[in-house]
Amino acid sequence: MNTSAELSPTLQLTIDLIREPSVTPHDADCQTLMIRRLEAIGFRVERLRFGDVDNFWARRGEDGPVFCFAGHTDVVPTGPVEQWTVPPFEPRIEDGILTGRGAADMKGSLAAMVVACERFVLTHPDHRGSIAFLITSDEEGVAVDGTVRVVETLEARNEKITWCLVGEPSSTTQVGDVIKNGRRGSLGGVLTVHGRQGHVAYPHLADNPIHRAAPALAELTAEVWDHGNQFFPATSFQISNINAGTGASNVIPGDLQVVFNFRFSTELTETQLRERTETILDRHGLRYTLDWKLSGHPFLTARGELVEAAVGAIRAVTGRETELSTSGGTSDGRFIAPTGAQVLELGPVNKTIHQIDECVAAADLDTLTDLYEGILERLLT
Amino acid sequence: MNTSAELSPTLQLTIDLIREPSVTPHDADCQTLMIRRLEAIGFRVERLRFGDVDNFWARRGEDGPVFCFAGHTDVVPTGPVEQWTVPPFEPRIEDGILTGRGAADMKGSLAAMVVACERFVLTHPDHRGSIAFLITSDEEGVAVDGTVRVVETLEARNEKITWCLVGEPSSTTQVGDVIKNGRRGSLGGVLTVHGRQGHVAYPHLADNPIHRAAPALAELTAEVWDHGNQFFPATSFQISNINAGTGASNVIPGDLQVVFNFRFSTELTETQLRERTETILDRHGLRYTLDWKLSGHPFLTARGELVEAAVGAIRAVTGRETELSTSGGTSDGRFIAPTGAQVLELGPVNKTIHQIDECVAAADLDTLTDLYEGILERLLT
Ligand SMILES: [Zn+2]
Ligand SMILES: [Zn+2]
Repeated sequence: MNTSAELSPTLQLTIDLIREPSVTPHDADCQTLMIRRLEAIGFRVERLRFGDVDNFWARRGEDGPVFCFAGHTDVVPTGPVEQWTVPPFEPRIEDGILTGRGAADMKGSLAAMVVACERFVLTHPDHRGSIAFLITSDEEGVAVDGTVRVVETLEARNEKITWCLVGEPSSTTQVGDVIKNGRRGSLGGVLTVHGRQGHVAYPHLADNPIHRAAPALAELTAEVWDHGNQFFPATSFQISNINAGTGASNVIPGDLQVVFNFRFSTELTETQLRERTETILDRHGLRYTLDWKLSGHPFLTARGELVEAAVGAIRAVTGRETELSTSGGTSDGRFIAPTGAQVLELGPVNKTIHQIDECVAAADLDTLTDLYEGILERLLT
Repeated sequence: MNTSAELSPTLQLTIDLIREPSVTPHDADCQTLMIRRLEAIGFRVERLRFGDVDNFWARRGEDGPVFCFAGHTDVVPTGPVEQWTVPPFEPRIEDGILTGRGAADMKGSLAAMVVACERFVLTHPDHRGSIAFLITSDEEGVAVDGTVRVVETLEARNEKITWCLVGEPSSTTQVGDVIKNGRRGSLGGVLTVHGRQGHVAYPHLADNPIHRAAPALAELTAEVWDHGNQFFPATSFQISNINAGTGASNVIPGDLQVVFNFRFSTELTETQLRERTETILDRHGLRYTLDWKLSGHPFLTARGELVEAAVGAIRAVTGRETELSTSGGTSDGRFIAPTGAQVLELGPVNKTIHQIDECVAAADLDTLTDLYEGILERLLT
């Protein structure tokens, strides 16, 4: 590993965080590393452990408006370690590229915001409003005892977030080229189509659930659910898993199971999606059970102070006109947006996240620090 | 168990055979029990062991025509023993019902034919032609080292079967109500539809093989392949297994696997089925691989000496007009019919075969003995 003296504070802290093998939902000692730095510059820190999950809420200042940075210290599993060119928890910078699990998602962002705050409070010890951190170690996992529980705690005591910047890697090729000002909703379904088991030689005595379901599935996959809108791409339906059969080639199975997921725009509600799906299934006369699970409603943060601050900082630091986007997966922003906060995601390039040899351009993390500091400047001075 | 003196020779031998736990492909000592009885009445017996499988060929007489009884000593597994009302290999007769694994499929038939031969050669020691037995212990299993290998052995030395009676349980409610004078062909396929794996949030970067395949599967399941004919029901297509997905609900799988089976009439050839299937898949633009496996061509034994002998014996013994049928699963008849033999299946009621508490009416096995003896009378005197 490169430990030469010229490492920037952001890179040094990123490396220290990556060295903690915080595979979800474990924090290892990441939060302690952050908390020490934040307490040193006047944050009051509240550790909030729920179940197996470490979270903390830190705040500097008493008044509103409240700018909050939301992020996670956990990382996804490494996959086969022998396929990495560096050990995933022994980060290395080579040819300007920092490689290690969490480099892009999202230990680089955590470090960038800690350092941005250090610089900001040095020049603005008496900034207006408050700066806060909402950090969890369970974003990549089931996300039950993480951000959602911290938000509940804040809501219970009526502590409000005005602007929330989520450190998720939003950029696609250059840092700051894309910010996410909303996310599609995510609605999952587990469909079981019921038939009657039998022998393939006696199909009239059986009722093949695969045959029953085939035309309904063809219709569901061909359906145009909406055309999206100015902010959202069209709603998409994807079957992720389909399973039926005993393994024997001469047995007609009794049931078929289909797991599917909607990513949906603000043009549609959860209820409409459920009803339209069930209408199609009913029209084909299926006997079925269907378990729905809503992972998040769609949310959108219209242009306003937070978006303008990010757009302005990106333009000032990089010269780039950033693109607002709502595409991609879910993030913990879905739990914070319903409180009324403006929510925005800005982080490094996401090309390698969750992959072998996750990496980020080292210089991008210093740029990101400048962007975060620029946003603080624009909102809290 | 009922061991009272009044048990008929057929029931006693059936019980002795069931007591041998000959779960496929094991014979236990069933064939030895049969061989002892056959040698005692002048059969020359050739044991033919291939791989793990015991088979034998027995013949009484030098000349043609050759009447052969074909059968198997192996049985399907018992399933959960605690669900049986009697231990499956400790047969019991209660209220006239013999219960035990193999009672109907097909140890009752084996015993009936051995006893029928004993009676027949007693009254016709110098019958015309020959009587033969072709017995395997691998009909219920993979059926690779069983009947097919014995038939090869006979073919290699040009030993011909004129008439073959297979002891499979052909009857539906009363013994002799149905005989099978043919069987549908069986053609299997393993279809893999290729797509590209990805994340459900980024479907444009993936290619969902389930979505690709759905309309093609809907069309395959709706297709009318033929309308059957005088002897065969319509060709049927059944999907027995369908599987895709990593288990994760947010991953679009890379491949979909579909296992299907045709049971086909003499209206269609294997080649036609393959071509029509692939035409449908191609029309939907699928990328796929498809492995075909033919289990047996359809065969048919038209009315002739064997059918007439069976029809006549059933009418004489039971007063019933039997029905000729080609429905149901495959049997080892598919291996014997291609040699040019007339092939017919006649055995007890098949309602409980392969099930918990497999059983047969005890009196039916004595009736079956009379039927088999009547067929021998009609063909070989
Ligand atoms: Zn993340
Ligand atoms: Zn059988």
